[in-house]
Amino acid sequence: MITLSSDFGSPYPASMRGVILGQSDARLVDISHDFPRGDVRTAAFWLREVLPYFPPAVHLAVIDPTVGSGRDVLVVRAGEHRLVGPDNGLLVPVARRLDDRFTCFRLTDVDAASNTFHGRDVFAPLAATIHEQPDPGSHPTLQPAVDPVGLSFPDAELDGQTARGTVLVIDGFGNAITNVPGEWLTPITGGTVCVDDRTVHAVSHYAAVEAGRPLVTVGSTSYVELAVNGGRGDEWFGLSTDDAVTMRRPELDQ
Amino acid sequence: MITLSSDFGSPYPASMRGVILGQSDARLVDISHDFPRGDVRTAAFWLREVLPYFPPAVHLAVIDPTVGSGRDVLVVRAGEHRLVGPDNGLLVPVARRLDDRFTCFRLTDVDAASNTFHGRDVFAPLAATIHEQPDPGSHPTLQPAVDPVGLSFPDAELDGQTARGTVLVIDGFGNAITNVPGEWLTPITGGTVCVDDRTVHAVSHYAAVEAGRPLVTVGSTSYVELAVNGGRGDEWFGLSTDDAVTMRRPELDQ
Amino acid sequence: MITLSSDFGSPYPASMRGVILGQSDARLVDISHDFPRGDVRTAAFWLREVLPYFPPAVHLAVIDPTVGSGRDVLVVRAGEHRLVGPDNGLLVPVARRLDDRFTCFRLTDVDAASNTFHGRDVFAPLAATIHEQPDPGSHPTLQPAVDPVGLSFPDAELDGQTARGTVLVIDGFGNAITNVPGEWLTPITGGTVCVDDRTVHAVSHYAAVEAGRPLVTVGSTSYVELAVNGGRGDEWFGLSTDDAVTMRRPELDQ
Repeated sequence: MITLSSDFGSPYPASMRGVILGQSDARLVDISHDFPRGDVRTAAFWLREVLPYFPPAVHLAVIDPTVGSGRDVLVVRAGEHRLVGPDNGLLVPVARRLDDRFTCFRLTDVDAASNTFHGRDVFAPLAATIHEQPDPGSHPTLQPAVDPVGLSFPDAELDGQTARGTVLVIDGFGNAITNVPGEWLTPITGGTVCVDDRTVHAVSHYAAVEAGRPLVTVGSTSYVELAVNGGRGDEWFGLSTDDAVTMRRPELDQ
Repeated sequence: MITLSSDFGSPYPASMRGVILGQSDARLVDISHDFPRGDVRTAAFWLREVLPYFPPAVHLAVIDPTVGSGRDVLVVRAGEHRLVGPDNGLLVPVARRLDDRFTCFRLTDVDAASNTFHGRDVFAPLAATIHEQPDPGSHPTLQPAVDPVGLSFPDAELDGQTARGTVLVIDGFGNAITNVPGEWLTPITGGTVCVDDRTVHAVSHYAAVEAGRPLVTVGSTSYVELAVNGGRGDEWFGLSTDDAVTMRRPELDQ
Repeated sequence: MITLSSDFGSPYPASMRGVILGQSDARLVDISHDFPRGDVRTAAFWLREVLPYFPPAVHLAVIDPTVGSGRDVLVVRAGEHRLVGPDNGLLVPVARRLDDRFTCFRLTDVDAASNTFHGRDVFAPLAATIHEQPDPGSHPTLQPAVDPVGLSFPDAELDGQTARGTVLVIDGFGNAITNVPGEWLTPITGGTVCVDDRTVHAVSHYAAVEAGRPLVTVGSTSYVELAVNGGRGDEWFGLSTDDAVTMRRPELDQ
C-alpha cells in the first residue's frame, strides 16, 4: 500500500499515480492533495494525525516549496511504516508519532527529468521502489541521514486555571485546533471556559449548543478545539493558524 | 467493496480509509466527500441517485451534524447492499430505492475514542466489520431498529398543463433539479414551457440551445432540470434548494 | 486499469465508477474530475501531459459539452493504450503523443438512458467493455472512424532572440504554461529574460527567487512557464489561457 499526500490540487497527482503504477501493483490511497500550498507545517500536522490510523504502508508526501533546490530527498523508517518526501521537516512529526526511534536515509543520486516536479520524477519512483523493497539499507542509492531538518509544534503552557496555547491548524469546517490537551478541558465539560475573555460553553460535542453558537470541545485529535455548531469557529473567535489563545477554566473541586 | 460518502472535505476521509484498511482488504470507492456540510437531505438525494449504480457493496455514509449526541448508529440491509451511517434519515431514501423491504439495525454499544469524529471511530470500523460479515443479524452488538428516522422528498403536483414542483438540489453545474417527473416534459420536447412566467425551450439536451441560454430538460435523475447551456441554471432562474417552481406546458394534442 | 477524467466535479463521477464496477474488476484511477467545465482544450492538454506516465490502460475521459447531440462516441487505439470519450478533439493530442499511428473507432449504436449524462450511460459501460476485450475491431458495434474531430495546440514562433508564444493553460498553482519549448530558455538559465517588456529572472526552479517574486522557468511539461515563487504567475504577469506572450532573451555566445 502506498498513500499519497500533496499540495498539488489537480491533475498533477495523477502523474505520480501513473509513475507508481508503472513500477508497482501497490494499492494507492489518497490522504489529501489539497493541503495548503507550500505550507509544510499544516501538512506535517495532518500527516501526524492521519497516517497512524493506517496499517503498515509506504507514505509518499510531497509538500515541497523548495523543489529543485539542494534540499535532500528522504526515506524514513518508522516501525513498519516507510515515509518518502522532502527533507524540510514534513515527515518528522509523523515519524516521531509512529516510532520514536525512527531512522532517516537520504537519496544520493537525484537525477530528475524536471526541476519543478520531483513528486513525479523523484519521489513517486522512489516510493514505488521502497514499496517493492522496503529495507532502505538495501538500496545503494540511500545513505543514512544524520541530521534531517526538524519540525515540532509548541506545547501549551498550563498554569492552574489558565492555558496559554496556540492555534495549530484550522480544519476545513473552520474548527480552530489548538495545542491545549483535551485533558485540560475534560473536567469542566458541561460548564464554561473563558477564551480570550469571551465566556463559551465547554461541551462534549458540537450539537450540544444551538446551531450558530460557539463552543469549546475536545476534538478528534485529542486537542481542545474552538468551534461553532454548524458554522466556522475560526471566524467567530477571530483566529488563524499560529495565533495565541488564552483559556481560563473555573477552579476545579479538590 | 466499501463506498465512502461524507461532508468531511479533506483530509478527514483519509482517517476512515486507514481504519478500514487496518481491518479489511475491501476495495474502497469514493462517492463524494464534498456533500454540503451538515446537509442531510442533499446527501440523501445523491446517495439515492448514485448508489444503485453500484454492484452489491457496503456503503458507508457520514453526514452527521449531531455526532456525539444520542442519535443511533444504523446498519441497513437493502437487498444485497449494506448501508452504514447515522440514524438521521440519510440512508432511508437510498434504502427504499434499493429494496422497498429494507431492514434496519442499530449499534447497541457505541464506545468511541472521540465524540466529534464517529466517522473514524464508530462508522468506519463498523463498515469494515459488516464487509467481513455481511449478516447484521449475526452481530451481537446489532439489534433490529424498529423506528429509524425518516426522510422523504415531496412529490410534485401535476394538474393538467401545470406542474407545481420543488427544487430538490442544485448540482455542481448549477442545474436546478426539480421533483417534476421527466415524463411530464417529454411530450413537449422541442416546444416551450413556462417556468414561473418565463418561456423557456424544452429540449432533449443542453447544447440544443445556444451557449448561455436557458433550457428545461429531463436530467440524468429522470427529473425535470432547469439549466443554462454552459452556464448556471440556478442563477438564471433565481432558484435555490427547496424553492417552489411552477411550470406550465402547452395543451397536448389528444 | 481504467483511468477516469471529467469536468463533473462531485458526485457524478461516482455513478461512472459504479457502472464500471458492475461490469469489470478493473482497477480505477482518477486523473481529475475538476477540469474546467466544458473546456475541451484545457483537458486535452492535461490528458496529453499526464496519461503517457501510465502503464497500458483504458483511459475514459468525458469533457462533453455537446452531450446528447449527434457527436460521435470514440474508442482510440494508441499503442497498448485505449481511449474512450466524445469525438470533440479531446482525445487527439494524447493519442498522437502515445502513438503517432493511432486509430479511431466510433460507436454505431448509442442507446442511452439519458441525453444529459453519457458519461454514466454510454462512456462508462463502453470503457468497461473495452477493458474486458481491448481489441476495438472485435466489437460489432464499433466501426473505423475515418475523420475524427481534430484538436492541436499552436507552436511558438522562435526567431533569434525572440519567442512569440501563447499561454496554453494556467495550472492550479497559477503557473502560466506557454508553448515556448524549454530548450529556448535553458541556455540563459541564471540570467534574465524580457516577458512583454518586463525583465524577469530565468531560473532552474521556483525557489531560486525570493518568495513573491516572478520568474521564468522550464516547467514539468518541458515548456517555458511564467510563475511566482509561492504565488500566482498568471496574476503577476496578467495572463490568461490563449493570451499571446512575447519573450526576448539576451544574445547567446557563439
